[in-house]
Amino acid sequence: MSRESFWTEDPKLLLRVEPGFQLITSPTDTHPGFEGNKAGGVAALAEGALVLADLQERLYANHQAGDDGRRVLLVLQAMDTAGKGGIIKHVMGSVDPQGVQLAAFKKPTEEELAHDFLWRIRKEAPQAGKIGVFDRSHYEDVLIGRVRELAPPEEIERRYGAINEFEAELVDEGTTIVKVMLHISAAEQKVRLLDRLDRPEKQWKFNPGDIEERMLWPKYQDAYQVLFDRTSTPIAPWYVVPADRKWYARLAVQHLLIDALEAMDLQWPAVEYDVEAEKARLLAAT
Amino acid sequence: MSRESFWTEDPKLLLRVEPGFQLITSPTDTHPGFEGNKAGGVAALAEGALVLADLQERLYANHQAGDDGRRVLLVLQAMDTAGKGGIIKHVMGSVDPQGVQLAAFKKPTEEELAHDFLWRIRKEAPQAGKIGVFDRSHYEDVLIGRVRELAPPEEIERRYGAINEFEAELVDEGTTIVKVMLHISAAEQKVRLLDRLDRPEKQWKFNPGDIEERMLWPKYQDAYQVLFDRTSTPIAPWYVVPADRKWYARLAVQHLLIDALEAMDLQWPAVEYDVEAEKARLLAAT
Repeated sequence: MSRESFWTEDPKLLLRVEPGFQLITSPTDTHPGFEGNKAGGVAALAEGALVLADLQERLYANHQAGDDGRRVLLVLQAMDTAGKGGIIKHVMGSVDPQGVQLAAFKKPTEEELAHDFLWRIRKEAPQAGKIGVFDRSHYEDVLIGRVRELAPPEEIERRYGAINEFEAELVDEGTTIVKVMLHISAAEQKVRLLDRLDRPEKQWKFNPGDIEERMLWPKYQDAYQVLFDRTSTPIAPWYVVPADRKWYARLAVQHLLIDALEAMDLQWPAVEYDVEAEKARLLAAT
Repeated sequence: MSRESFWTEDPKLLLRVEPGFQLITSPTDTHPGFEGNKAGGVAALAEGALVLADLQERLYANHQAGDDGRRVLLVLQAMDTAGKGGIIKHVMGSVDPQGVQLAAFKKPTEEELAHDFLWRIRKEAPQAGKIGVFDRSHYEDVLIGRVRELAPPEEIERRYGAINEFEAELVDEGTTIVKVMLHISAAEQKVRLLDRLDRPEKQWKFNPGDIEERMLWPKYQDAYQVLFDRTSTPIAPWYVVPADRKWYARLAVQHLLIDALEAMDLQWPAVEYDVEAEKARLLAAT
């Protein structure tokens, strides 16, 4: 359990994908572990931001001062409008930008397609001391890849195993992986797409292709289910976060990051120089 | 003049390096254009943060929606402890991380040294739609490079011209360059170094080599003077920001970014699809 006092139960335990998990019966509009309303959630997020910022600075400091190889990777996956951008802006936006490493994966380029699907992903794996965020990820290759049959079935099958091996490598080099699916309902997506169309300052976020993707909703949900069954591993479990309420999704993801960092027991690093000698030298020399 | 009402005079005009500028007589503890105190400055920074965040989102949106090639590059140079990190945390930290591209230039690697000094810099030039920040930059190659004689004098001489050409290329491709030197006094640096040594949560930021660099203070000031004389150009002028008061330096740099973005006259992008048709399609289809 974490330092943030506002949780009634640890959302990490409530949201983690366990054997037998079924996406189709998983709610989108609840707020597990938090009993307050939106105003309470916004206040809690501000409180949690201070905790997260402190932990992030310790992680960064330990790498700077002592080559500590630990790092965090937050993987964000979701249907359009589910709030990936809001997580980055409102959760990651509260920590020092110097400690954050973002990577957004769009439609692969020709060059990227000429390589294995993990080629472009490996290049963006977070550096030691950083919190990396993948805005979409290698999981697109078993989501849109599966739904739109962008690769032969046997290649899609191969990828689940390749992903698990890749993530095991990241864990071995000191990465804590936090995999999040922001789970919204199709009805909520419709509201959000209409909102984008209605507001001139949001229209740029809409793409006509979003409607074609939306029409494949059941196929995507199936692809997510397979993905959870195949890639929610003990070393890198998935968390499915109800995301119809943006304030809750942000608070829950913030907690998952706080939890990941707290598990590292991050102290301020011991320095290798003699503090008193350096003070004397500074005062004498100049 | 900008939208932020709290300036009595435009700091852009007050801080810009003009012909005849002398660093040695330039104050470090003033707050040109702002008549308030620290509390007023902190409140003003929060007000400016909203303006900056809005402009940054418009810049980002224009690139996403229409391949607008415009971008901003903030170059930060300073003696140790002058507050580069604080600018990144407190000024850049207030905008959406998705629109920011940070690059910190440390001591060059073997591979970097095997190339021209601009090789590693070019790779980090900001993408269209982004605000890039260089935490140290190509200017190190005419600062520490000059002071510590890391290259022959004729190579150092060559670099000033190469820098001006490089920056002209960036401007040609749509970059607004904002070059900032955070100007602190040697006395203030001593206070800040002692503070780092005194506080366990800051000791990791201190390096014994910082004292050797400090002993070269006059040589660095000379190198900065040459740099201003040679590279403060009409298309990419330098700004020398008094930085003994951190709150003022942050406010001034925030303003320079706001000013750069306002000059672009950023409207929300027009979209290429038919809004009403898409609305109808969304409501009918799903």
